[in-house]
Amino acid sequence: MVKRFDQGGISAQSVRALFLTSAFVQFLRFDVVAEDAQRGTVSLRLPFDHRYTIVSDLGHYHGGVIAAFVDIAASMCCVMATGTPTPTVDLRIDYLRSPRNVDLIADAKMWKAGRSIATADVVIRDADGITYALGRGAFSVSNSKASMFPTLPAEQEGTR
Amino acid sequence: MVKRFDQGGISAQSVRALFLTSAFVQFLRFDVVAEDAQRGTVSLRLPFDHRYTIVSDLGHYHGGVIAAFVDIAASMCCVMATGTPTPTVDLRIDYLRSPRNVDLIADAKMWKAGRSIATADVVIRDADGITYALGRGAFSVSNSKASMFPTLPAEQEGTR
Amino acid sequence: MVKRFDQGGISAQSVRALFLTSAFVQFLRFDVVAEDAQRGTVSLRLPFDHRYTIVSDLGHYHGGVIAAFVDIAASMCCVMATGTPTPTVDLRIDYLRSPRNVDLIADAKMWKAGRSIATADVVIRDADGITYALGRGAFSVSNSKASMFPTLPAEQEGTR
Amino acid sequence: MVKRFDQGGISAQSVRALFLTSAFVQFLRFDVVAEDAQRGTVSLRLPFDHRYTIVSDLGHYHGGVIAAFVDIAASMCCVMATGTPTPTVDLRIDYLRSPRNVDLIADAKMWKAGRSIATADVVIRDADGITYALGRGAFSVSNSKASMFPTLPAEQEGTR
Repeated sequence: MVKRFDQGGISAQSVRALFLTSAFVQFLRFDVVAEDAQRGTVSLRLPFDHRYTIVSDLGHYHGGVIAAFVDIAASMCCVMATGTPTPTVDLRIDYLRSPRNVDLIADAKMWKAGRSIATADVVIRDADGITYALGRGAFSVSNSKASMFPTLPAEQEGTR
Repeated sequence: MVKRFDQGGISAQSVRALFLTSAFVQFLRFDVVAEDAQRGTVSLRLPFDHRYTIVSDLGHYHGGVIAAFVDIAASMCCVMATGTPTPTVDLRIDYLRSPRNVDLIADAKMWKAGRSIATADVVIRDADGITYALGRGAFSVSNSKASMFPTLPAEQEGTR
Repeated sequence: MVKRFDQGGISAQSVRALFLTSAFVQFLRFDVVAEDAQRGTVSLRLPFDHRYTIVSDLGHYHGGVIAAFVDIAASMCCVMATGTPTPTVDLRIDYLRSPRNVDLIADAKMWKAGRSIATADVVIRDADGITYALGRGAFSVSNSKASMFPTLPAEQEGTR
Repeated sequence: MVKRFDQGGISAQSVRALFLTSAFVQFLRFDVVAEDAQRGTVSLRLPFDHRYTIVSDLGHYHGGVIAAFVDIAASMCCVMATGTPTPTVDLRIDYLRSPRNVDLIADAKMWKAGRSIATADVVIRDADGITYALGRGAFSVSNSKASMFPTLPAEQEGTR
């Protein structure tokens, strides 16, 4: 289903094209702004659109849009890193504050995977570095090369 | 924002109408099939649509659609039960198996709330009782009457 | 490590004895009050002890004790149901209200597992049916027979 | 219950002393190795002890010990930052790999809080930077000064 690249991963643009076969994903008009398949990281940008809000003229994002954006970003970095489909086992979103009338950026990374599960983290922020939501999920990587990924020092890998 | 009713709750249809002011919610064409504002429960039905799939002709639901359906059902029972807006604090979805070409039902209930937080559970199943996903979330009910809700016996309230 | 029984499961008492090789588990003096290996359910009882509290004379349970009790109950039903070790992938605890000076009961059940993951739910309640906390976790069952477990009707299996 | 300091926080050692009134917390012999009340961060060190293992001579940590260590570290940074008790609303632990015969370090941080909820992240690692588990929780800070905390740039605050 997903073409493997020699370097063991797949480009964010290739994954984006794959994901966009879904009408649901097409509802979210996001772009890839940074990626590192070897590190298992990707950053996506979602320009503000009133279609994403709860009540249009107030401009507050619907929580479901943020949940979907987290799911897409987390899944994308796992597929990039493993070069295979990575079904979601579970997904969690923490809403820190409500974004309003602002473009959102999703910084996603995959933690080093075990034999069968990869954990991915997503930070939803704006260009000024205000954090609006945190995402975390477990993804099935049973058929992946994820166990080949290096472990990074906690300073880089950690939550600060 | 939401009119309080004398019986201390609000109907699922009224909440549905409120939610449908969002273009994102409109993407999901769900109906209310059962509700109990006093108990804080609601059941929603999402008829299958290829717009909800990952790859249209395979018919597997996109995980983000299930996450959004969980968020809507969980939020709805909290708003019904409290008669106030209930911002999502955090949301979690566990994917047990992938639904395919099938209508989905979301059975949502709100657990008795504390002073500031209500926890809501959602089971995503089909009409045959096959369970596809589980949802759970914490919602802010600081301004609500949620603390007036009764506690049900664990037999009824529990996870079995 | 765990002996398989012909009926494809293992008794709660056998799992309890296995778990009690851990000094940490020994800290929690729980008993098995009900079990159904075929259904993948177990109920444990933790008699109140001041060693479980935050501040001894106030009698409120420490959240970490409840987290550990949830982990033990959820793991036990998965080991019972699969007859194999089931490493925890992730664990979540929702605290609805603080139990004080009361014996706690953990009702745990395993949902039908996929090929590699089982999801287990736990309700922490007292004998009067007051619910204090909810637990949910994903467990690795790669080597198990879990896929042989039946799916129950949502009425029995659901969150109400 | 907790004395407020003029600088708006409370020291990790003071919180540790408060927590150690619990026999359950005493089971975990941890030290404070770094703290920053203004930033809402703390690092705890748990020297390896066979009392923390599943099967003593194998040396693998019990998942419940890691869950309790996450709860203590996350709660500590929230109490430090707010100068008030911060009851746990919900707690989640992701187990990346099983630590064995090694001292554990918990790096905890509190994200900027809303009016009523603070979210805290914990990374469980060893001195070499190998990450074993991730923790995240929501804590009630209704009575706290948490809303006075600054927002850090995503580069520092994010998950990488």
